[in-house]
Parts: sequence; structure tokens; C-alpha cells
Amino acid sequence: MSKEVSEEGEGRKDYVDPQPAPLIDGEELKLWSFYRALIAEFIATLLFLYVTVATVIGHKKLHDACDGVGLLGIAWAFGGMIFILVYCTAGISGGHINPAVTFGLFLARKVSLMRAAAYMVAQCLGAICGVGLVKAFMKHEYNSLGGGANSVVSGYSKGAALGAEIIGTFVLVYTVFSATDPKRNVRDSHIPVLAPLPIGFAVFMVHLATIPITGTGINPARSFGAAVIYNEDKAWDDHWIFWVGPFVGAGGAAAYHQYILRAAAIKALGSFRSNPTN
Amino acid sequence: MSKEVSEEGEGRKDYVDPQPAPLIDGEELKLWSFYRALIAEFIATLLFLYVTVATVIGHKKLHDACDGVGLLGIAWAFGGMIFILVYCTAGISGGHINPAVTFGLFLARKVSLMRAAAYMVAQCLGAICGVGLVKAFMKHEYNSLGGGANSVVSGYSKGAALGAEIIGTFVLVYTVFSATDPKRNVRDSHIPVLAPLPIGFAVFMVHLATIPITGTGINPARSFGAAVIYNEDKAWDDHWIFWVGPFVGAGGAAAYHQYILRAAAIKALGSFRSNPTN
Amino acid sequence: MSKEVSEEGEGRKDYVDPQPAPLIDGEELKLWSFYRALIAEFIATLLFLYVTVATVIGHKKLHDACDGVGLLGIAWAFGGMIFILVYCTAGISGGHINPAVTFGLFLARKVSLMRAAAYMVAQCLGAICGVGLVKAFMKHEYNSLGGGANSVVSGYSKGAALGAEIIGTFVLVYTVFSATDPKRNVRDSHIPVLAPLPIGFAVFMVHLATIPITGTGINPARSFGAAVIYNEDKAWDDHWIFWVGPFVGAGGAAAYHQYILRAAAIKALGSFRSNPTN
Amino acid sequence: MSKEVSEEGEGRKDYVDPQPAPLIDGEELKLWSFYRALIAEFIATLLFLYVTVATVIGHKKLHDACDGVGLLGIAWAFGGMIFILVYCTAGISGGHINPAVTFGLFLARKVSLMRAAAYMVAQCLGAICGVGLVKAFMKHEYNSLGGGANSVVSGYSKGAALGAEIIGTFVLVYTVFSATDPKRNVRDSHIPVLAPLPIGFAVFMVHLATIPITGTGINPARSFGAAVIYNEDKAWDDHWIFWVGPFVGAGGAAAYHQYILRAAAIKALGSFRSNPTN
Repeated sequence: MSKEVSEEGEGRKDYVDPQPAPLIDGEELKLWSFYRALIAEFIATLLFLYVTVATVIGHKKLHDACDGVGLLGIAWAFGGMIFILVYCTAGISGGHINPAVTFGLFLARKVSLMRAAAYMVAQCLGAICGVGLVKAFMKHEYNSLGGGANSVVSGYSKGAALGAEIIGTFVLVYTVFSATDPKRNVRDSHIPVLAPLPIGFAVFMVHLATIPITGTGINPARSFGAAVIYNEDKAWDDHWIFWVGPFVGAGGAAAYHQYILRAAAIKALGSFRSNPTN
Repeated sequence: MSKEVSEEGEGRKDYVDPQPAPLIDGEELKLWSFYRALIAEFIATLLFLYVTVATVIGHKKLHDACDGVGLLGIAWAFGGMIFILVYCTAGISGGHINPAVTFGLFLARKVSLMRAAAYMVAQCLGAICGVGLVKAFMKHEYNSLGGGANSVVSGYSKGAALGAEIIGTFVLVYTVFSATDPKRNVRDSHIPVLAPLPIGFAVFMVHLATIPITGTGINPARSFGAAVIYNEDKAWDDHWIFWVGPFVGAGGAAAYHQYILRAAAIKALGSFRSNPTN
Repeated sequence: MSKEVSEEGEGRKDYVDPQPAPLIDGEELKLWSFYRALIAEFIATLLFLYVTVATVIGHKKLHDACDGVGLLGIAWAFGGMIFILVYCTAGISGGHINPAVTFGLFLARKVSLMRAAAYMVAQCLGAICGVGLVKAFMKHEYNSLGGGANSVVSGYSKGAALGAEIIGTFVLVYTVFSATDPKRNVRDSHIPVLAPLPIGFAVFMVHLATIPITGTGINPARSFGAAVIYNEDKAWDDHWIFWVGPFVGAGGAAAYHQYILRAAAIKALGSFRSNPTN
Repeated sequence: MSKEVSEEGEGRKDYVDPQPAPLIDGEELKLWSFYRALIAEFIATLLFLYVTVATVIGHKKLHDACDGVGLLGIAWAFGGMIFILVYCTAGISGGHINPAVTFGLFLARKVSLMRAAAYMVAQCLGAICGVGLVKAFMKHEYNSLGGGANSVVSGYSKGAALGAEIIGTFVLVYTVFSATDPKRNVRDSHIPVLAPLPIGFAVFMVHLATIPITGTGINPARSFGAAVIYNEDKAWDDHWIFWVGPFVGAGGAAAYHQYILRAAAIKALGSFRSNPTN
């Protein structure tokens, strides 16, 4: 295989680590592709919140008749939408659709500060519009059924909720880094082919585990959009958890990937599945 | 990677945009592959409606005993069938299986007017036959359990139903355009490999969100076939929503893709996931 | 793309249709790989029946407490096992695991008569052993909960059940032919990569639709193995349906693929998704 | 295709069987990549147990209100986490996340004794920490709802439970061997691309079948971590089953793969799907 060939030879690395993104990049503000990426993040986050919150409200409405999609269906809605939206926007904006993902990639210097901030604004605006559409379509049921907002479920402490958000976002951002690592993309050719699928599955998995604890945020734009439209005290009281938790989790995943998994990358050339002896 | 190489160089585009399809193409009427494509669309839409409507009726029959496949199972049936049928017919007819998809691709000049019209007829005939088979197998239960027909669920306005159909079809046709964009296929080699899977997932997702609102159309042939066989007033009264909504949504997705995402495509060469700086 | 290049040129076909398999091939009886394939089919069908019938019985046992995996879980068990078993045995035996698939591939002359007959025997023996293991582990519950056997559910006619088996097997075998067509494999490089997944999904889909009608056979070895171990009159009375239906459906799919979809293959060179104009 | 070309020629094998791993490899203890692999196994097993056991406890808490994720959701949690964690760690540690997988690969001489032992320790420690986090977040519910521990469900014999663990682990490890066989990777290019997905599905499938029997172990670290944190007599009494069963099953799968499927590999060059005639 050609990839193995390139590992031999004159000690050259067989992959290209892109230059760290500058903090401020005035040039990118002049490019149409920058604004196109913002539009893509806005639309994707809008569609993400519209489909997922409509699923949540629709489930709760039918639940008394035992005929909703179930928590399993809700978890699929969040994970499946991330799968298709990362798939659709990966080539346009990088497919973040989540301020915590943007924050993790910023910490790893994969995007500039400017781009990171602009993405987060676009994501939050998109989330507000997406949830707004659900409220427009479902009217009073939207509010009476909880509005799809995140909050700490009765019986759990705020510390447990914060911990659940941290680890949940760690799982997601760890998967994002694994799926987009240029070193591994060269080594294991199957990595990029399936990238959006495991990222979507990571979101699906975390929802299975933590819907009973917080409803599952792991995406501050998702929590913020629902809080703005729902606008009840409970959602705002706990709201800080859904920013602090995801950002801490994303930071942890970035650190784990950069300082542990990528450390000594050059020396570790040639590790293979089930026989990683050097 | 060879794809990157071709982005360098003399400013040549690294991909080939196919010529816009002519409105009327007399030549294609002489080709066996044209009629074969019509047969493939007919059979695929028949199988699509047969499996999905049988799933809907079977679920409703067992629901009192809490033993149906659930709304989640119904959503899987619609999404999963689109996955396998797009997979099976992509190389024969393009794998539309949905007049709204055909309409979107026609607006983007990917298929001729002639082909678009013929596909829609084949799809509608296939849908009628597929639902007819379910009625033949399930007899009186078919009618007593709603016939798998789409209509506005009590408690929702026609405007909400129309909006839900528009956005739902936007999600589907946006995914279809993303999965088949020749520019992105060159850039991201994982795009074509997984094309049928995200398209199927888009259908799955939209069903999770809007089964409680309209039963979910986003496919006029699906709604038309069920309306013809079920043939009750309610289904026909709302029927326009399941043509207008999907066609508006498909038009919106085509416009979004062609005018926003593909605009300035040449200038935007070289955008990569998580570091799209130019 | 290289595949397009090969379509140009001197009118050569860009793919290799393998020679039709001989009816009787004495040579293959001398090869270890023939017997290895039989072992692989035996083991795969054993594991298929063990996991799926255990899922069925386990669901029924817990159903009163509303805590089984549901019909949706049962459908996943059948489809998911076919996915992983086709994946595991594709390179050893072709990954049939189903006499109807073997019959369809025999009709298309992809396997010899000898191999087809030997596979069917291995599949039926494997199925009996797999269901036998479930009975050994679950004892009296196995029989009291229906034994995972296929029969016509009360309220449906034998004709409806036969029709459901025919169309269900058509969906499966049509997907198998689409996934393994040498012409399409050259044209669409994504076809072989995902082959086991859509085949598994086809099985999943058909189970969603027809568990309420017959329990879903579409695999005579599956029906035969359960009938032998369960061994009650009802299962044997309807048993012919689960051989005749799948074989007719497989024959129909083989005919559809060979006479409609593959007809005039040479003239139809160059059909692409969404722009198949020649 | 190049892979076929390499099968022709001077009788050379078209793939490289890696050298058997030494039992003791002092060199690997000096490499950072060895310790990095241990960290990756520790973190992956921690995340695996955290997400899956939280899903189990969350389901049981909501079950009275018929609003948990269901046994199907639990099965997805186990299978889906293995999918994403194998995906994320395959290039770092080989992605075992399971002492039975490590044992199977050790028997096949794919990893050294040293590495196998160190992996198992890392996996067990990770599992304890992961379950510990769930207990920290969920407090008294953790213990009152069974702690996610494996034990023989009332009504089943220990022999049946042991048999279920053996066959379940056989399914998993057989899939692992199939997905990572260097011979098949050359022959069928789709094998490595999808490797983590069928491995995750194997875990999903086995859980559908055997949650009603033992809760499903097939991973001694998973059973051990839950037993340590839950620490009730019942979990410890049956605990040997969840080491002996998985190790016997993994050994069986290793033997099946090495002695049956790979036997006479050189003579069997050129077996293709649906026409494996030599």
C-alpha cells in the first residue's frame, strides 16, 4: 500500500500537519467562502434544532398514548441530524454546527479566533431560528411540553449535570479530532471515508446516556436557542452548565488529542491495528 | 493526494460540471436506458410504498397490544427503504424515487424536462401499485387503520403542515445535492462512497420530526399513491399540501445549493474540513 | 476518474462479466476452499438463527413487563446479523446464508448446481443447530413462546402470506444483485464498499413490514430450522409457503436484474446518477 | 484492479502476514507508543462503561413511566460505543477495549504477552473508573437499580449463561478477526473501510439476544468494573462466568479463524463473492 511506502525512507513524516491557524486573519474576511461558511453553519444549526426539537415535542405530545418515538427516537434525531449535516457542510464550513466543537478546534489552532467567534454567533442565531420555527408550528404545545430546553432533571445535582456535560462533550470532540487527524487519515484510509458517521453516533450515544440527567446539551447553541425561545426561569438558571460543561469537555478532548495521542508522533510511525509494536 | 495536486496549477477547475440537461432531448427517447430507468423508478417506488405502508398498517394493528414497531420503526422503514433503493437504482435511473427530488434536479438542470415528467409519472404509478398490494394483502384493516395516507393531524393548522413539508423536503433535497455535487465529489473522496446512506438518514430524520404533524409526505408520489388507494375525503382535502410543500422545499434546496453553496466556486478552491481558510 | 477513462476508447466493455458457472464442476469438489465455504455457511447460518431466535424468545418473555427489545429490536437482529455475517463470510463463501439467495445466484449462473445444493444443505443444518442451541438454553420457554417459527398470522390468508414472502425476498435478492453486479462495481466505486450494509438493511426493512403477517421468512433455512426444532403442526402446515415464496421472489429478482436492468448493457455505457442521458 | 493483478504471477502471496508477535518484547517497553496505547485503552474503556452503564441506570429509572430508551436503546449504547471507540483508537492501540478481544489476538500471536497483560489491566482500571463516575453522578439510584452488573437472570441455569457468553464472544471476536485479516484486506477492499462498524454491530446484536439471559458481558472488563463498584454478592457469585465464557469464546473464534478459514490460504487464492470456485 502506498501509505506504507511513504512511512519508510528518509525519516520524512508521511503526512502534512497544516500550519496553525492565525488568531486574527484579516485575509479571510475578504473571501466569499468565509461568509458562505457562516451561512452554512447558520442553516445547518437551524435545521438541526428544528428537526430535533420538533421530535422532542412530538414525542411528548403522543407519549400518553404510548405512541411517541421514545427516548431512543429522540437520541437518533440528535445523532442522525449531526451525521447528515456534518456530511453536507464538511466541505463548506468544516461542519461544526456546535460552538463546543468550534472551541475545541480553535484551541488546537485549526481555525482562527475570528472564524471561531463568527461561527459561534451564526450557530446561536441558527439555533434560535430553528426552535422558533418549532414554536411557530406547534404553538401552545411547545411551551406546555418543555420547549426542548435543557435543565438539570430533578434528583440530580448541578455537579452531576456539569460532569455529564463535560464527559459527553469529551466523547464528541474526541471523536471529531480522531476523525479529522491528518496523521491518522494517511495511516488508516478508512478514517475520512466514514468521518461523519462516527461523529453522528457519538452524539447519539451521549444522548442515550444523559437525556435522563440534563436532556443532554453538549452543544451550547442547542441549549441557548431553546432557552431563548422557551424563556422560562428554570432553563436560564441552569444555563451556565450548558456552556461551561461543553467548553471544558472540548478543551479536555483537545488536550488529550494534542498532548497524549499526538505526542511523539514522529517516533511512533507505523502503529497498526492489533500489532502496534513500534 | 491527487485531488490536491489538481487544485494547484494553472487555475483549472479540478472537477467537471456536467452540461445543463436540455429541456427537451429527443435523443434520449430512442435509448433503451431511458425506458429502463422508468421501469427502475416504477419498481423502486412500488417497493418503497409496499414496505412502508405495510409497516404503518402492521404497527397500527398491533399497537393496542403495545407490540408494533413504533413510530421509530415506521421512520426507519421510510429512511431505510430510501437507503437501499437509492443504492440499488443510483446507477440505473439516478435513484430519485420521489417527484420532489426529480423536480429539484430538474430545476438545477440535471435532468431534462422530458425525463423529469416521465419519472414523475412512473413514480406515481409505482406508488399506486405498491399501496394497492398492501390493500390486497391486508384487506379491511387497510382502510380501517388509515391507509397510510397523509393528512394534517388534528391540532395543527394547514400552514404548519405546509411549513413542515417545505422544510422536511428541503432537508432531503439539500442532502441529495450535497451527496451528488461533482465539485465536492472530487474534493472530499468520502462523499460518493456514502451517498445513499445520508440520503436515507435524511428521510428517517424528517419522519421522526413530522409524523406527528402530517404523517410526513416529503414525497408527492408517496402521498398520491396512498390517497388514490385509500380514497377518503380527508386525504384528498389536504392533498395539495403534499405537492406544493415538497416542490417548494425542493426548489428552495436547489436555489440554496446553486446560488449560495456553489457560488464563486472557482475562487473558493481548497476549502478543507476544520481549516477552510480560503 | 480512471473508471470513466475506461469507458471511452475502442468500444471495449469496462468491466468483466465472469463466465457463467458450470452446472456440474467436478474440479471444485477437490478444493479445500469448497469445503471451507460449506463450513462458513454452516457456522454463519447457525449464528444467524441462534442470535435472532434468542432475540425473539427473549422479547416475548419480557413483553408482559413492557421491557423486551420490541418488534423493532427483532427486525434489527435479523438485519444486523445478516450485515455482519455477509461482511465476515463474503470472501470465504460469497456470504449467502440463505437458500433463496443461493437459488437466485444459481439461476443467474453465478454458482454451480453442485455448490448451490451443498450450500443449501449446510445452511439448513446450521439453522437447525442454531435454533437447537436456543432451545437448549431457554428450555420450556422456547416452546411456550412460539419457538421463533414462521406461520401465517391469524387474520391473513395463505395467499397474502405467500405474496408477502415473494415480494420480501424480491427486495432482498434485488439488493444482493445490485450490490454484486460487476458492471456497476466498476461504474460506481461506492457499490462494493458498502455491499453488506444495504443487504442487511434489506432484511431489516422486510422484517418491519411483514413480521405482523408471517413473522417474516424470506430465508427457507431460517424457517426450516425453526420448524424442525419447534416441530408443531401449525409451523409444518404453512411451511411450503416459506420455500415457494422465497424461491419465486428470488427468481423474480434474478429475472428483473438479468433481463431488464442488465439488458443492452453495452449500449447503456455511461449512465450517471441524476444525469443518465445515454 | 491492482489487487487482482498481484494474485497472478509467480505464485507469490498477494498479502503480507505479519510476523507472530513475540511473547516477551522488551523493546516495546521502551516506546512511548506502548504507554500511549495503554492510556488510550484506559480512556476508551472508561468512556465505554460510563456511557453504557449510565444508559442502563437511566433506562431503569424511567422505565415505570414507560419512558426509558428500552432494551433496544441499551443494546445500541453498547454497540454504538464500541463502533466509535474502535474507530477512535484503532490507530493508537488497535482498539481492543475488551480483554477477550485482547486474549483472542494474543492467541493468534498478534500482540505480545506483555502487551496483552498490560492492556487487560488498563481495560479493567478504565472500566472501574467509568462505572465509578456513573455511581458518583447517580448516587443511590446506581445501587438500587442493579448497578449495571452482569449476573445470571433468574430462570436460566449457569450452564446456559456460560454458553450464551461463549457464543456471544465468538460472534464478536470472529467479526474482529474477519475485519482485520491481512489476507482479506488485500482481497476485498471494503473490509478495512468499514471495520469498526461491523464490530460495533456484533456487540449490538449479541446484546439484543442475551440481555434477557445475563445482561450480556462478552467483555470481562465491563463485567469486572461493574462488579467492583456495585459489589453485591450476586454479581461476584456469577462473576467467573464473565471471564471463562468470553475467554473460551475468544479462543474458539481465534481457532476457527486460524485453523479453518485461514487454512490452505495460499491454495485458495482468488475466491470472490458469489463465485468462489477455487
